[in-house]
Amino acid sequence: VSKAPPRVTLLTDFGTADGYVGAMKGVIASITPTAFIDDITHDIAPGDIAGGACCLATSWRFHAAGTVHVCVVDPGVGSARRAVAAAVADQFFVAPDNGLLTHVLLEPGATIVEISERRFVRDTVSRTFHGRDVFAPVAAHLARGSSITDLGPIIRDAVLLPLPTVQISADSVSGEVVHTDRFGNLVTNIDAGQVPDAARVTFPERSNVQVRMVATYAEAEEGELIALIGSVGFLEVAVRNGSAAERLGAGRGMQVRVGRGDDAGRGDVAGRGTRTP
Amino acid sequence: VSKAPPRVTLLTDFGTADGYVGAMKGVIASITPTAFIDDITHDIAPGDIAGGACCLATSWRFHAAGTVHVCVVDPGVGSARRAVAAAVADQFFVAPDNGLLTHVLLEPGATIVEISERRFVRDTVSRTFHGRDVFAPVAAHLARGSSITDLGPIIRDAVLLPLPTVQISADSVSGEVVHTDRFGNLVTNIDAGQVPDAARVTFPERSNVQVRMVATYAEAEEGELIALIGSVGFLEVAVRNGSAAERLGAGRGMQVRVGRGDDAGRGDVAGRGTRTP
Amino acid sequence: VSKAPPRVTLLTDFGTADGYVGAMKGVIASITPTAFIDDITHDIAPGDIAGGACCLATSWRFHAAGTVHVCVVDPGVGSARRAVAAAVADQFFVAPDNGLLTHVLLEPGATIVEISERRFVRDTVSRTFHGRDVFAPVAAHLARGSSITDLGPIIRDAVLLPLPTVQISADSVSGEVVHTDRFGNLVTNIDAGQVPDAARVTFPERSNVQVRMVATYAEAEEGELIALIGSVGFLEVAVRNGSAAERLGAGRGMQVRVGRGDDAGRGDVAGRGTRTP
Repeated sequence: VSKAPPRVTLLTDFGTADGYVGAMKGVIASITPTAFIDDITHDIAPGDIAGGACCLATSWRFHAAGTVHVCVVDPGVGSARRAVAAAVADQFFVAPDNGLLTHVLLEPGATIVEISERRFVRDTVSRTFHGRDVFAPVAAHLARGSSITDLGPIIRDAVLLPLPTVQISADSVSGEVVHTDRFGNLVTNIDAGQVPDAARVTFPERSNVQVRMVATYAEAEEGELIALIGSVGFLEVAVRNGSAAERLGAGRGMQVRVGRGDDAGRGDVAGRGTRTP
Repeated sequence: VSKAPPRVTLLTDFGTADGYVGAMKGVIASITPTAFIDDITHDIAPGDIAGGACCLATSWRFHAAGTVHVCVVDPGVGSARRAVAAAVADQFFVAPDNGLLTHVLLEPGATIVEISERRFVRDTVSRTFHGRDVFAPVAAHLARGSSITDLGPIIRDAVLLPLPTVQISADSVSGEVVHTDRFGNLVTNIDAGQVPDAARVTFPERSNVQVRMVATYAEAEEGELIALIGSVGFLEVAVRNGSAAERLGAGRGMQVRVGRGDDAGRGDVAGRGTRTP
Repeated sequence: VSKAPPRVTLLTDFGTADGYVGAMKGVIASITPTAFIDDITHDIAPGDIAGGACCLATSWRFHAAGTVHVCVVDPGVGSARRAVAAAVADQFFVAPDNGLLTHVLLEPGATIVEISERRFVRDTVSRTFHGRDVFAPVAAHLARGSSITDLGPIIRDAVLLPLPTVQISADSVSGEVVHTDRFGNLVTNIDAGQVPDAARVTFPERSNVQVRMVATYAEAEEGELIALIGSVGFLEVAVRNGSAAERLGAGRGMQVRVGRGDDAGRGDVAGRGTRTP
């Protein structure tokens, strides 16, 4: 950890009204009174590990060296699932070993340890709230300079979520929606580099819909269903000032196919006002 | 900027679950590691510029000199709309030039610049997320002491929302509801100074309702529909321990008329238990 | 107050979208520019004093000495209800005198004062927003070192919520649900120490349901209705990866009875898949 002031972020599915997050903040500030505590979110759907992983994937890379991220979406709390900490690109992560850190751990050079040293956790560890009793205190100790390798042994078998794959053929790339955001944008797992120029985007499960690629929302007409490269570098399906999720009645898991634009015209073009069930 | 520690506030319509706000916080802390980052809100309705402007109008004046407010409700991101920064009353604001800063920019002595200097934004600016790539880094630079006039040229034609006007006649003042708050209070654009003593409040679109002015909720009976001067100095319509918005089936845009109290009696008095559709 | 950096927490029913919380943060930072301002929650249901008290009970004990907690759920704002501050276990609390601090004030050694000294509040105090005009500035002054006894006279008659009692008989303990959390867990007022080994849990209002005690969620089958000792030391009723509140159609106030396990078998055992109306 550099001499930058300690910064700890929180990402949970706890909401805030029950006081669980408040307790975690207290534990952190008690151990590291100078820590900045920044909320990433507490609005992950209860138990939605993939949703938490996606939120983290969108945000972590922009944080400063030395930042400690506490990530708790933990339906298996109290089971034999391990608690882990990771060092990736000069940042630190603590979380249950359930796939929540998947996108982070896939980075080259990640160091992952199982948290086993009792001196970094609360004296009494409850069976139901490791956010407060394990992850918050470990994060606070990392933020004040403890070494990650003091926490426990290095492991190489951390749990990773099975990520949906992208299929590349001669004339198309097929992937799927991995996240629906607050605006109803459908974020896919198709990387910008996999999208040909003048692409057209279709949906195997919505055979009558095809959409054009634009560079920015402003190129679309109000209410038009479009595709574009989103802010983290993946293909997104969107409606300008509207919700693509609502328009397509779609969410996580919907198949998305990107073909060459000269292939266009085989289906109906989904223009302004087109609504598909 | 004074020697006070750097403080940055955030006001967006992003929610938190998608990681967009987390990314912005990371960008700010990376540039200005000692910055306090305080959330104003991320719960503005998607694309609701007027709602964001109202939230900012309610809060900004209470912040300290040197505070930098990052405000992002930005349905036009990626279009030709400008990015602006403003210095008002020793505080700073960065936002899309779409009216979000309206109430702030109407303050005497506001200095407004178009953000055009590339060295204050991220190296790569996405087409869809200027909160992370433009507004967060510019705010972080202002928080650590950059001068607002270094950001770009001064402009005098920033976009302002068309604010609803108040009509003053010999015997009444007419305005409208500009905001419904979480408690169902209907906040109007009628200034305290425009409200006569012993006023009675009526609604042209609800001809059978009239309400009396009180000084405080406690003067009302439980469930009574009343009017009072709210905490930012404007007339509000409220129900003690209930929702005026629900009671009147009303929200932003509803006309409100304030007449002299001796004019009372022309309509039915809306007392406890009265419910209007 | 020790030399630890000033930390202020906020717990309200204000939501964030209206700017009320933003205004409070501005007031605090204006008076104490070095204060860390940590949100506990702003999502208490409007006017739900008991819900706010419960959130505070879950979180306050974990905070550091010197922390100042601003708690505002205040349906009686503008009435004659007092504003109070309290010092408990080296932490500080400011709140309306309406029972919001009940669990804190029951701690041995609590010092409670009525806030009466005008110099600690804003020059103009509105009739409707004491969060901004009274509680935030008082908290900021406490955070920078003012003494609690400077705020006003010590009182010994602060308002306490009537807490539901626990009835202990020879063969059972009877209490009730005092909180439903985000996961649908039903938190009771039955202390861990009152729960016999091998207990079985029944509900007088749901005569056909009985559940077994487990040590942790992981001992339950997916979807099983169970009881366990929760993270703050009270009996909770839960469904593994599901909602006990939904399963039982129950919430705050439901009666809960803990009997000896050898008493089991009198009712139907609620196993996986059992759903009661």
